[in-house]
Amino acid sequence: MVPELHRLSVGEATAWIDRATSPLPTESVSLFAACARVLADGICAVQPIPLADCAALDGFAVAASATVGATSYNLLLLPLRAVSAGDAIPTGTDAVIPLRLAEPQPSNLVECIEAVAPGENVEAQGSVAAAGALLVPAGTQLSPPHIGMLICAGLVSVDVVQRPRVRIVVTPKNAEIDGNGPMIRGLVQRDGGVIADVIAAERTSQGIRNALEADGVDIVLVIGGTGPGTEDHAAAALAAAGELAIHGVALRPGETTGLGDTRSGVPVTLLAGSPAACLFGYEMLAGRAVRRLGGRNPELPYRRRLMHTRRKIVSAIGMTEICPVRCAAHDVAEPLPSFGEIGMMAAVAADGFVIVPEASEGHPQGAPVTVYLYEERCIDG
Amino acid sequence: MVPELHRLSVGEATAWIDRATSPLPTESVSLFAACARVLADGICAVQPIPLADCAALDGFAVAASATVGATSYNLLLLPLRAVSAGDAIPTGTDAVIPLRLAEPQPSNLVECIEAVAPGENVEAQGSVAAAGALLVPAGTQLSPPHIGMLICAGLVSVDVVQRPRVRIVVTPKNAEIDGNGPMIRGLVQRDGGVIADVIAAERTSQGIRNALEADGVDIVLVIGGTGPGTEDHAAAALAAAGELAIHGVALRPGETTGLGDTRSGVPVTLLAGSPAACLFGYEMLAGRAVRRLGGRNPELPYRRRLMHTRRKIVSAIGMTEICPVRCAAHDVAEPLPSFGEIGMMAAVAADGFVIVPEASEGHPQGAPVTVYLYEERCIDG
Repeated sequence: MVPELHRLSVGEATAWIDRATSPLPTESVSLFAACARVLADGICAVQPIPLADCAALDGFAVAASATVGATSYNLLLLPLRAVSAGDAIPTGTDAVIPLRLAEPQPSNLVECIEAVAPGENVEAQGSVAAAGALLVPAGTQLSPPHIGMLICAGLVSVDVVQRPRVRIVVTPKNAEIDGNGPMIRGLVQRDGGVIADVIAAERTSQGIRNALEADGVDIVLVIGGTGPGTEDHAAAALAAAGELAIHGVALRPGETTGLGDTRSGVPVTLLAGSPAACLFGYEMLAGRAVRRLGGRNPELPYRRRLMHTRRKIVSAIGMTEICPVRCAAHDVAEPLPSFGEIGMMAAVAADGFVIVPEASEGHPQGAPVTVYLYEERCIDG
Repeated sequence: MVPELHRLSVGEATAWIDRATSPLPTESVSLFAACARVLADGICAVQPIPLADCAALDGFAVAASATVGATSYNLLLLPLRAVSAGDAIPTGTDAVIPLRLAEPQPSNLVECIEAVAPGENVEAQGSVAAAGALLVPAGTQLSPPHIGMLICAGLVSVDVVQRPRVRIVVTPKNAEIDGNGPMIRGLVQRDGGVIADVIAAERTSQGIRNALEADGVDIVLVIGGTGPGTEDHAAAALAAAGELAIHGVALRPGETTGLGDTRSGVPVTLLAGSPAACLFGYEMLAGRAVRRLGGRNPELPYRRRLMHTRRKIVSAIGMTEICPVRCAAHDVAEPLPSFGEIGMMAAVAADGFVIVPEASEGHPQGAPVTVYLYEERCIDG
């Protein structure tokens, strides 16, 4: 009965997570392994970019003053100094003649048919960034172009926030086929966590407690055994291993979600064994903890779009409800049968979902709703 | 001079890629390793879901007919058959009384205080999906919820499109620091490719040709040596190893991009060594080939938003130009200095980019533009 009696709001549960989690310490990693990592400190140019005056295209480096008066009727012969794009231009030159406006000649000379101005086709030293200029701000999640740019800027390693080490504790009933473990594993990886271990615990308070108390991780997610049934021991195990701060959240699906921490201060989330409740307990609460530990944006990693609901959405007051929807048109959301009715089919058939907050009874037909849109955000093995 | 004389449009180059690439054969993988893979065939329910009539919540299974007349003034004693959510209900029962409406008694009885209707709190056999119903259509990129649902539906493996094996050939000048390789590696992984090998080739036609002709991959990306300079041998190497179909694309940055295939039919993309040109040669052309081979949506993997440009965008007719922009407001795009002016800083400082097609001279201030928005789409190592 605990969940029904002591249910807290999603807002209160979120506030608990925000108090219990903050970004992990930093570590230095090679830029070759830094993709998707979160930069701990801003990165400044260690030297001017480019380091010297460089050719902006393939051609011939010249002193612009020597080309004055050159035309196709007045070809000038100049010393041949071929340069490729990106090469530093030789001392004594200050411009580059493109290949098509010059013709190499014997005796290391080049025929020039057009005058160029000083600096023409030259990228001046420091023109992209002066030494000391901020290249990438702290907190940036590094993308492939960041990596390429930082390597070109002369860096070999960067300080990033450590990735949270996540333990998943599954509590299978008998020989039950459990898809929750693999599902949560994929979501943890999406959120930047590293699966440290997956423990199949005996479905007893002591079995789960042992899994909670083993060290070496930054957060533990327990799946199953969160309900009020006689075989549900997750809450008792967490209370024994440390503190059960919250058990029961006014979230549907996900009502039996629990939060707390072990005696050594490791945050723990208890997720329901029912797949849709497990999914949204993770999405709405546990995922936020993983993202905060890793220094990422804590918000749901889905893009939002303001749409209109094609049918009425009904929701109980006092309960945050997740309503799966399909995009019927660019800005029209079609509510699907609920998780209560069709379980995980709702999650996989939907294009996204609407979160109906606890103060709301739902939305009338045609009302504007914010849709969280699914995308292909899964992590490759 | 080749690129300037024989430049093809981006549309023509795209059409060449679409002719040269199609999804790879399929392979069977465990569902535990199927995250982000592309489903080869639609998956139908092998058995009804749920397989039997199941309890929808924790409680006591009863024959509804036996509860008729139960109230808090008329407690009925029924046989105690406790069930957890998801359990099959015993033969002879057709409804579940929630825990809060019943009280277990000695002698294996339960006291019932409210009548329930037949089917109440029961998920009927096949109510989520009948046997044979389509669960996930072919071509779906599997997300964590798909994995969880399919495991729950009784599957252990699925047929998916093979991941394209990608060779990256880098051609460093002297001891040059090259950020292109790591950048392209990250983008290939984002697009579902597997880096089979990275070969640092000698910057000669024969050196690059050897790398092209080694077998074991589905596509080769050569970085550098695509220009008209005397040290640029990529095009000659591809012509010697098979066919150089296109060299020079009316794309800025990315003008010296090349396309072709080896004698054994492996598609090859030649990417410029200049970082911004390398990036957009990949984004606009090579990436499409990788995504097509892997059965993914071939379009650019960025979301699009219709915005208005805060300043004039100028572009040369006959040239597809990429203009980096920053979001100044939800629907206002601020053009940044071009790749020609600030190179890769444009890519990392931007929130996205506008593609100005070759038939356009650009956009006046305030004009609507489609912005491709960057997101954190990088793949974790």
